[in-house]
Order: sequence, then C-alpha cells, then structure tokens
Amino acid sequence: MSEQPAPVQNPGLTAPAAPSPGPAASAPGPLPAGLAAALKRDPAGLVAAVVQQYDTNEVLMLGWMDDEALHRTMTTGRVTFYSRSRQEYWRKGDTSGHVQWVKSVALDCDGDALLVRVDQVGAACHTGTRTCFDGRELDISPVQAG
Amino acid sequence: MSEQPAPVQNPGLTAPAAPSPGPAASAPGPLPAGLAAALKRDPAGLVAAVVQQYDTNEVLMLGWMDDEALHRTMTTGRVTFYSRSRQEYWRKGDTSGHVQWVKSVALDCDGDALLVRVDQVGAACHTGTRTCFDGRELDISPVQAG
Repeated sequence: MSEQPAPVQNPGLTAPAAPSPGPAASAPGPLPAGLAAALKRDPAGLVAAVVQQYDTNEVLMLGWMDDEALHRTMTTGRVTFYSRSRQEYWRKGDTSGHVQWVKSVALDCDGDALLVRVDQVGAACHTGTRTCFDGRELDISPVQAG
Repeated sequence: MSEQPAPVQNPGLTAPAAPSPGPAASAPGPLPAGLAAALKRDPAGLVAAVVQQYDTNEVLMLGWMDDEALHRTMTTGRVTFYSRSRQEYWRKGDTSGHVQWVKSVALDCDGDALLVRVDQVGAACHTGTRTCFDGRELDISPVQAG
C-alpha cells in the first residue's frame, strides 16, 4: 500500500488543501463569522479600540486589536490589546494592576473601530495619569462659536 | 544682462534646491515641528482621531488624520479627516450639514491617537444615528464583577 501508484483513488482524504484552522471547521478564526466579515482591518490586521469609562464617559485610551485580542476581550471580561510596537498581546493591568473590566463592546458603522466601555481600575495611562490624553492638549486657533 | 554667463554670481535666487514648503521655511510640513515630531503615524501617514461630544462625553466616531488634516482641524475650527477609502480630505458636515465645531484637541502619551472634543451638529454618523456606535453592540460573555 505504501507504493500505491494511484493516489487519485483517495481524493480529499490525503494532503488536504488547507490546514485545520481550529476547533470550529466552519470558522477560520476565533470570532463569529458575521463579526469577522464585518471587521475592516488595516494592513497589519488591526482595528482601533477606543476605551471609555462606562459611567463617566471619559475616553481613557486608544489601543489596537486583532481578531484574537477582540475575541479575548469579548470572552474573558478583561481588555486585551495587540501591541503594535512590541508585536505581542497585552492584557491591560497584568503588570500595573490597572485592570479594565469589560462592560460592553460595540463596532462602528464601517467596521474599523471598536468602542470598549470598561470599569477602569486606577490610572489608564502608563505615565500615571487617569487617561492617556490628560494634560496633553494642543494649541489650537480660537474656535468659532458652535 | 539676459545673456550673463555666470549665474553663480546670484546664488540662492535662482533654482532653489527645494521648493518652498509653506509659510515657515524651517517647518517642512504644516504642523509645528514639535508636534510633527511627536506624531507616531501608521505606514499610511495617519493617526486615529477619536471624536467626542464636549459636554456629554459621548464618543461620536473615529476618523483618521494626516498632518494636513490635523493642521486644518487645529486652525479652522472645523474637523477635517483624511478618508482612507476615498483617499481624500473630508471636512465633516460639508455635504450633510452635520458640522463638528472644534473645542479642543489632545495627543495621547505615545503619539498615535488624538482626542478631538467637539460640538456636534445633528447626527455624527452617516447612517443617521447620533454616534457611529449606537445600536451596534456585540454579544459578549457575562462580565465579571468590577
């Protein structure tokens, strides 16, 4: 049998065209198919994730998520990002203690941005400020009346 | 004089080495040098811009800005984005009337995200909803207590 000259007799059972993608044969990634199809990822496979304090509406920070980071955020109760600079997953609070507890996640109308509402423990910014934007205002020209 | 054989007598007045970049000869782009140096742009030259209603703290939408779009946003009182899909500048409200009046602009700690606080006229989303995230919540697993 090891020298069978006619592999065509067994099509589909040997040398599959694609490797098994994971636990669900119909889903090639960790996300539900509809969500995976709705995401408009950048060339690095990422979408922007705006993180907002759920009760005060403060914008705390902006991070980046690939499919796996979004999956972890949606299923574990803790926000996980993908670090563009370190090229690794990063679960907020693991080193600082400044955990982000997930309250809700929404995807915007064109699929390239997430709004993650959280309960932030302590400072969101690694510099120690509550948000990553605190005290970092730019000089702008006088604003016209709205 | 029109047949002078020695243009070297007039250096700097003819055929300048580089075209004039704008009003400030020391700044190659439209932004102040310090700000331009602080921006951490993606490979397409863009940073993410989170747009927030200034008085309610609602997150209205997320757009993208290159240096020129940020310059226009900082100097005209109106938010201007760079459209990744259409590859052109887009001043919010020009077609819809749903203008965003700029109240403040802040750059985050690592330079890749802007927080633009505005007074939004009408709906921020082109679909007609107040924000681009309204009614677009994803199903998440039950959240642990914060």
